[in-house]
Amino acid sequence: MVSRRRQAQRREKDVLKQLPFQELSINFDPVRLLDAEQIEKIHDASLSILETTGMRIDDAKTREIFKQAGAEIDQTENIVKFDRGLIMESISTVPSTFTLHGRDKGKQLTIGGNHIVFSAVGGPPFASDLDQGRRAGNHADMCNFLKLVQALNIIHMEGGCPIEPTDLPVQTRHLDIYLASCLYLDKPWQSQMIGAERVHDAIEMACIASQISREELAAKPQFLSVTNTNTPLVLDEPLAQGIIEMAKAGQAVCVTPFTLSGAMTPVTLASSLAMQNAESLVGLALTQLVNSGVPACYGSFTSNVDMKSGSPAFGTPEYAQAANISGQLARRYNVPWRSSNATASCAVDAQSAYESQMSIWGAVLGHANLLNHAAGWLEGGLVASFEKLIVDAEMLQMIASYLQPFDVSNDALGLDTVDEVGPGGHFFGTEHTLERFETAFYSPLVSDWQNYENWRDLGSVDTAGRANHLWKKLLADYQRPAMDQAVEEELNAYVTKRKEQINNL
Amino acid sequence: MVSRRRQAQRREKDVLKQLPFQELSINFDPVRLLDAEQIEKIHDASLSILETTGMRIDDAKTREIFKQAGAEIDQTENIVKFDRGLIMESISTVPSTFTLHGRDKGKQLTIGGNHIVFSAVGGPPFASDLDQGRRAGNHADMCNFLKLVQALNIIHMEGGCPIEPTDLPVQTRHLDIYLASCLYLDKPWQSQMIGAERVHDAIEMACIASQISREELAAKPQFLSVTNTNTPLVLDEPLAQGIIEMAKAGQAVCVTPFTLSGAMTPVTLASSLAMQNAESLVGLALTQLVNSGVPACYGSFTSNVDMKSGSPAFGTPEYAQAANISGQLARRYNVPWRSSNATASCAVDAQSAYESQMSIWGAVLGHANLLNHAAGWLEGGLVASFEKLIVDAEMLQMIASYLQPFDVSNDALGLDTVDEVGPGGHFFGTEHTLERFETAFYSPLVSDWQNYENWRDLGSVDTAGRANHLWKKLLADYQRPAMDQAVEEELNAYVTKRKEQINNL
Repeated sequence: MVSRRRQAQRREKDVLKQLPFQELSINFDPVRLLDAEQIEKIHDASLSILETTGMRIDDAKTREIFKQAGAEIDQTENIVKFDRGLIMESISTVPSTFTLHGRDKGKQLTIGGNHIVFSAVGGPPFASDLDQGRRAGNHADMCNFLKLVQALNIIHMEGGCPIEPTDLPVQTRHLDIYLASCLYLDKPWQSQMIGAERVHDAIEMACIASQISREELAAKPQFLSVTNTNTPLVLDEPLAQGIIEMAKAGQAVCVTPFTLSGAMTPVTLASSLAMQNAESLVGLALTQLVNSGVPACYGSFTSNVDMKSGSPAFGTPEYAQAANISGQLARRYNVPWRSSNATASCAVDAQSAYESQMSIWGAVLGHANLLNHAAGWLEGGLVASFEKLIVDAEMLQMIASYLQPFDVSNDALGLDTVDEVGPGGHFFGTEHTLERFETAFYSPLVSDWQNYENWRDLGSVDTAGRANHLWKKLLADYQRPAMDQAVEEELNAYVTKRKEQINNL
Repeated sequence: MVSRRRQAQRREKDVLKQLPFQELSINFDPVRLLDAEQIEKIHDASLSILETTGMRIDDAKTREIFKQAGAEIDQTENIVKFDRGLIMESISTVPSTFTLHGRDKGKQLTIGGNHIVFSAVGGPPFASDLDQGRRAGNHADMCNFLKLVQALNIIHMEGGCPIEPTDLPVQTRHLDIYLASCLYLDKPWQSQMIGAERVHDAIEMACIASQISREELAAKPQFLSVTNTNTPLVLDEPLAQGIIEMAKAGQAVCVTPFTLSGAMTPVTLASSLAMQNAESLVGLALTQLVNSGVPACYGSFTSNVDMKSGSPAFGTPEYAQAANISGQLARRYNVPWRSSNATASCAVDAQSAYESQMSIWGAVLGHANLLNHAAGWLEGGLVASFEKLIVDAEMLQMIASYLQPFDVSNDALGLDTVDEVGPGGHFFGTEHTLERFETAFYSPLVSDWQNYENWRDLGSVDTAGRANHLWKKLLADYQRPAMDQAVEEELNAYVTKRKEQINNL
């Protein structure tokens, strides 16, 4: 009983032991699955697609922007055909590196170069935990999830609403999402990208929350938001207008085609990557034609379907290959690159972990600058799981530790200690050990390293069960980041006013 | 009901769909966490340890071999001190690449270069599955596990007895293990390495099973067996004699110090790697002094302890770093390198998968030539798990698929198909898709890509549960590889004779 109590006490005490909020960089060469000539073939194919087939752009303003830049427009079919020179010249002004800011001035992030940033899951319509199971997304779950995103230091930024609050009206829902993001987070969060109006509201509210002007926000961007295209080769009006509004405000857009091999693209990965590249480059070009030099990010999300059922698959071998090669493509253009942590698993089990690991390593080895959906994604992105959030945070902390520099100083090598202990001895009690043992190694969040007997006596709780304990503890301990009462009132007033405007339309 | 039956039928039919037995190679550069100068510091430290502190070698024959080679011997303490020139000259004859043979002539494996080979778990004293739980290792479980190792194509070789048959007498147990290995496998298996006698029996029985002479076995080695050292800096008599006997017989030894940072070595990874390097090089030198040019392998197993409890940890960030750097060290000496797939988890859950993934990626990125314990290891190596075997096989198949060449031919790019379908279309029904869809993507063993509703309606079975179904199906379908009746009788007669000899001693 003593031992059991001690174990339980230890677990309580350790609950909040995390790595600090920190910038991370990858100090080894990226994995190059293709040589330069092979990358050039995909690049050429994508530009051929844009020249020959073109893209349907269902927004008149965007067609006009491209027309002014020299693109050939078929106004009856809304088809825009792009000369390769136009694309390459337009994207040449995308900054290779920029700084993203949070409401907390200490939480600024370098996007680009060899830096990698982790953002939480965005977009799921369902929530899930072990206590209440799977349910439609709602405002209370969304708020709790945002609090956990804030509480977990390893998550650098929010991911664009973790759980859709389907209990709120569609037309004004984005205002409630933004309000919660402003109140519960002081790290960067992502705006909705569907339509200019939602982007506009995000920008206004971020300015209020940080008490800065739109000019100041443009000078120190707080948004790196993700938009999709309508693969294959379509950009609809709301998405196009969202991109334009963001670029005008000096904020960063990550253009991410969802190129599912065998469905929205031909069944080969090479073709899917050519399609992804074509659409992403068009999106990047649009940002620069609107606001030359505005930060932007190359987004990739190429995966494959299960050819037996048509179901999408994630974290597959093909997914990891596509990630590595997407990184090579983005570096070909000298622009920041985004990848994802994804799984098709319906449970927080072994599959969810190994598919996520395949995704994460695909990103890290490819030198992703933004790992989107880095924590909380389950079931092909349909579900935000509270337990998966913790398991992902553990995996991300492990990657962060793996990326730390390796000490080979004489002090670390400690040859005197080796000689002092000598053959057949042990090192537990040496001064060299005692000086270092508390910080020598990564200390896990949810991994259990107890022996079998202790683990069994504490109830044989698996990883998901331990994660369930942890997120509830983290949520109970959550502290809202400081905000002046007047600022909070201003935010609330903005939301009230905008809801009235929208509801009276 | 129709849908449910169809799902069940599909699962039955797909049970045996595996990748073929195949050699694998890694066609991208290894990850280099350290630069050449840092690697040289670890190298220098390890040779300083061997010169200054030396190693205790508790076998007179081995001390004599090293004395003849010029080492300095303190006979009262059994301490051997090695000049660095002696070590470097001795190991210079280790072949950088060699061919390992199985009883099945089609199952030969290249060890070294950019090739990677997967061997099953070896050594656990316990077995575990979801039906019967955790129990002491026994002969029946061992035989079943060996059958599954044979049945899973992705496993290239056996790992040195997957489950210790503790229901058999200790002195003759190795004969029963070898007999089962000869009968149930036609891929390479590993001999026990404790003492000359056990090695001798393995070699005799392999010669009988393949109906070849000892000279033929030496010319076409079938053994790549793993030995530990007694870290720190001790080599006991049985281990030393096992190495000598293997080298004399022309078989490959993989010398693997178990360097647990903070316990058997100082608490820094740099020091653990220096210790590992020192001991592994001594073992490699011994093989070459016995039989110059005999194949051998640099073994690494550096991990860390939980500094709160003293429990060993596996698949940690430090473990992955140590693996990468071990690969750099082995390449410094131009010798094949072995790593492992390890986890401390007590259940086949998310932790077991993400710790294994950290281990596997550490090995693959470091260009391991042998991934030992690649499938079936659980609970720090105390348990061979039937379900983990299947989950690991899935993860290894995924890695094997990730390592396949990537096709960027014009045919794969399929620009005509893209143009034919055009903006807003879909690619399911195109000729380009129909020609390729059956083999386009990796098809999983145990991963479930169904949507939530189907998964729930089939019982919400998690990965471990599905693995339980699969190993039982595989075992039921197992076919023993062909062996002449006379050969089987000769093996049985050898075992009977040797048991009599040992029992009458």
